[in-house]
This record gives sequence, structure tokens and C-alpha cells, in this order.
Amino acid sequence: MKYVLVIHGGSGTILKENMSASREQDYLHTLENALQAGEKMLKCGQTAVDAVEAAIKTMEDSPLFNAGKGAVFTHDEKNEMDASIMDGRTLAAGSVSGVRRLKNPLSVARKVMENSAHVMLAGEGAEQFAKEQGCEFADASYFYNEERFQQLHEAKKSEKVMLDHSGENEMTDHNGGEMLGTVGAVALDTHGNTAAATSTGGMTNKKFGRIGDTPIIGSGTYANDDTCAVSCTGHGEYFMRNVVAYDMSALMDYKKYTLQQAADFIIQEKLKKQGGEGGLIALDREGNYVMNFNTAGMYRGVIREGHEGKVKIFK
Amino acid sequence: MKYVLVIHGGSGTILKENMSASREQDYLHTLENALQAGEKMLKCGQTAVDAVEAAIKTMEDSPLFNAGKGAVFTHDEKNEMDASIMDGRTLAAGSVSGVRRLKNPLSVARKVMENSAHVMLAGEGAEQFAKEQGCEFADASYFYNEERFQQLHEAKKSEKVMLDHSGENEMTDHNGGEMLGTVGAVALDTHGNTAAATSTGGMTNKKFGRIGDTPIIGSGTYANDDTCAVSCTGHGEYFMRNVVAYDMSALMDYKKYTLQQAADFIIQEKLKKQGGEGGLIALDREGNYVMNFNTAGMYRGVIREGHEGKVKIFK
Repeated sequence: MKYVLVIHGGSGTILKENMSASREQDYLHTLENALQAGEKMLKCGQTAVDAVEAAIKTMEDSPLFNAGKGAVFTHDEKNEMDASIMDGRTLAAGSVSGVRRLKNPLSVARKVMENSAHVMLAGEGAEQFAKEQGCEFADASYFYNEERFQQLHEAKKSEKVMLDHSGENEMTDHNGGEMLGTVGAVALDTHGNTAAATSTGGMTNKKFGRIGDTPIIGSGTYANDDTCAVSCTGHGEYFMRNVVAYDMSALMDYKKYTLQQAADFIIQEKLKKQGGEGGLIALDREGNYVMNFNTAGMYRGVIREGHEGKVKIFK
Repeated sequence: MKYVLVIHGGSGTILKENMSASREQDYLHTLENALQAGEKMLKCGQTAVDAVEAAIKTMEDSPLFNAGKGAVFTHDEKNEMDASIMDGRTLAAGSVSGVRRLKNPLSVARKVMENSAHVMLAGEGAEQFAKEQGCEFADASYFYNEERFQQLHEAKKSEKVMLDHSGENEMTDHNGGEMLGTVGAVALDTHGNTAAATSTGGMTNKKFGRIGDTPIIGSGTYANDDTCAVSCTGHGEYFMRNVVAYDMSALMDYKKYTLQQAADFIIQEKLKKQGGEGGLIALDREGNYVMNFNTAGMYRGVIREGHEGKVKIFK
């Protein structure tokens, strides 16, 4: 089987006219690094799970994306992160939500999948589990980022919540607000197995321990070798109410839609009608893939065996 | 339209030979009270959302079920509760997870649905929201229950987790363990609209802030007037990986299964093959309903306009 790896770094009102050339290059460069980190795994026969973890770790370790190091600040000036992963071969899944001190939340979600009897662990309990598993912790100074902190203060000043990628520092209210800098990856490995994973820092200025679609199996992440592997990004509440990631699988399984038909129907029709902004990446066992979004842009990239990697930001 | 209300109080290894006659009567009586509380709403033209909330509040206020007052103890001798609700008319949804001091978690989930921009709020943040909404709080003494506390100590002694309804005080290990005393309700109101809701106290002796399927829209709860309203109970991890509640809707929408066919396929085939124990209640706009489980018993009841209410426990 020929491997495929697709990644995203969030969708939103990302406009070329609002982005400096050097910043654009930084994003493209980090996306390329993420593709290479994942491809390295796939090339030497490692699993789709290994590949999505490696790709996401690269983006979590970058301050550019709203996940891991680059996580935005909550109303209380904390960073609260969510992540989930699913193995399309076994339907095993793992997820963490509301974690504050984990360097790589997605790697902990993988430990939940592989070393616990559970699917989802939350908050301090999840951190206690991570500690017992020997996962890497990071303190507030690691997550501190002057730009993110300014974003919070701008958001507080205007009592709005802020769209992370709405231009550069552009403020938007947007139906109660949504953060669009989630990262995700889906992979098909040389054994013919798939995996999907998603990681996020949530929403600038968020209150009340809000959880979005990212740690929800079926909404933000889903993988099943028989249908598809999916990672979503966008206005999370819409993705939760529409159970988007599993809906991709159900449309292919029960209605015999192709990957492309399923993604077009959900992102361009169903969500658009409701005003749900966002996008998804997905692939199937045949190596077909989609990067579908109804916003101005989505940080994204794909690499396939025998092809050069491609990274893009705008439509 | 003729109204219908279906409720459950959890499924599991509930055997007649393990239950005293007086305890059986207590359960049946509380189920009847829950049906009456919901029917009262439906009779005077209130919504399906009102009916499922009223029915669940009755069960949350009883010490018999593992939700609200009867919530089991975590490893740390705390009560951590989850709940979710969905309005089939609008697809609006609300959920809380890991809350410790809320008297009626399901009523707070409804506030999240109606008075916030979000779908899911967690932990202390959810409690802060509940406070601002004027919801009722309860302290540890309200949730204290000698029998539950003994269950925790028995579970700790054997380093096992305990199935709440596995006979009376029977201990089971069971793949890392699962608590099966969740409560739920689905309703069709006289306006032809549906709603679904589920509430739980989680798992005896649980650690690490584990979250099950109950607060997950698409897994534990889902409602859509065009297909069905569903509330699940059982070994949560299986219900999460299989996105059970939304799968009911997808099978009806995309594969044109009847409510009965969809429930039989998921509970008796798909989950059974995987070893996933549990059940669900569901209804559609035509007034069809199912109470389907692959365990020895499920606390359950149904009441329809023009019919006597029926409550049952065993197969």
C-alpha cells in the first residue's frame, strides 16, 4: 500500500492581504516540517497512529498554531487544551480535555487509547494519568506567548472572544466566538490502516470550562479502516451538534457516498446552511483524500508516497 | 399528535433472584413517578424538552439511581456527574461533565443549551456557569449515601471497579469496569417534536476524571425530529467508539432502517460482537418507540397518550 498523510492547522478568515510574507513563510515551513515528521514514520513502515502523532507533535511544539505551545489563553489567563486520536484498524480511541500542563496533549490521548480502559479523561485526572505514564509536563512559562496574551487582553477589552486566525489580530465576535487554530492529521500507512487525530488550545477568552469538538470521538475525530479517517476544525459547537467526523463515515457506509461527496455534503451544504464555519481533512483506504473548508482559508498539507509534499493556506 | 415518553434507569446484570421484593417495588415506584412527572408536562402541551427534564429530575432526586442524589463515589470519595440534553426540533444541545455540586445536572445541561453559546461545559467552569444561572447546588452531605460509600470501599478493597446494578452489591471487574445506573428519557410532544436526555454519576471507584458517553452528544444522547430521539446506557467506552446515539439517526436517515431495525442492529449485533454491554431507549415522530438492551435487565418505562404507563426491570 502507498502511504498518504494529510494535515491541517485550522481554518478561518485567513486572508492573504492580512498576512505578512514572512509570517506566511513561517506557517508553510512548519506545515512542511509536520508532513516530514509524519512521513518519516510511514516511510519505514510504522503505523498511521505513529504518523499522525509525529505530525501533530511538530505543530503542538510550534508557537504558530493554537495547540500545545501556541495554545491561546482562557479568560482566567490559563491554557486549557483538548486532544483526541482514533485508530481506524481497531476502532480504539483516546482523548483528553481541559488539560493545562501537558506539553503534548495528543501524545497523552494516545496513552489513554493504548494504556487505559477508557476513552476520555478530563482535567486534573487526565494530568494525574499522564504523570503515571511518564508523559512530559510543561509549566506556564512554556505556554506563555506575548502575542496570545495580547489577544486575550484585546478580547477582554472588547468583551468579545477572538478568532485566532481571523487575519492578524483581527477581532470577531462571531456567534459567541470560536477559535480556529486547531491542528489535525489523518494518515494511511503501508499496511493499509488509517488513523485520525486532532489537538487544540481552545478559544481565546473562553469561560466556564467550555469543551469543543476536538476531544469528542465522532465530532472532531473519527477513524475506521472500512470507511475513512477524519479530523475537523472550525466552530466546534456546529461540529458537535452535527457529529461531523462520524457523519463522514456514516454517509460512506450507509449511503455509499464517496469521500469527496460526503465532505462536500457536510461542509458545503449541511454546515453552510446552518452558518457553521470550518473544514475537515479526511482520507480512505484507497488513498483518496480531501481538504474541504467553507472559510477563506485553512492551513493544510498533504504528502503521498512518490509525490512531493504540498502545503497551502488560502483557497 | 399523541405524546409518548420513554425512560430508563440503567441496564446491567440485574437479576430477579438478587433483588428483594421491597427493593424491586421501590424501583418500579420511582420509575412510575418519573413517567408521571414527564406526562404531566406533555398533557398540558409543554415541550418534549420539558418532559425529559421533569422525568430525569425525579430519578436524579431519588437515591436509587446513579445520577444526582444517588451518584456513586469516585476513587477520591467524590461524586462526579455528567448529563446532556438535545432538542430534536432545533438540534440545539447542552451538556455538563465532571460536576460535583449540582443538585440536578440535567437541568444545568438544559441551561447550557438554552442560555450559552456552547454545547459542553466541564468541571468547575460548568459550576460557575450554573451559579450565574441560579441553578440549585447541593453539598457533599446531600450526595452521601451509606450504601454507595460501602460499594466504594468494597471496590477499593478488591481494587476493582464496581457495576452499580450487578445484582445487589455484586462486584464485577468487567474490562476495567463500568457503572450501569445511568438514567435517561426520550419524548415526543403534542406538537410533534422530540427530545432526548441522559444523566449519570459515572463509575464507582473511577479515577483520572474519566468521562463516559453520557455527556457526549452523538454517543449517549441525540435527538432529531427527522429521525429519532435516543438515550443510551451501558459500558460507555463502547458507546463512544461506536457513536451509538447518532448511529441510530444515521441508519434511519441514510439506510432507511426503521427505529426497531436500527436499535436491533446496533445493540444486538454491532455492540454484542464487540462485547459492548448496554441498551438504549429511542422514539420517532410517528410515536414508534424501542427499549432495547443486551444485558439481563434494564430499568425502564413508557407512557403514551390514552394508555396506562408500563414499568419493567427484567427481560
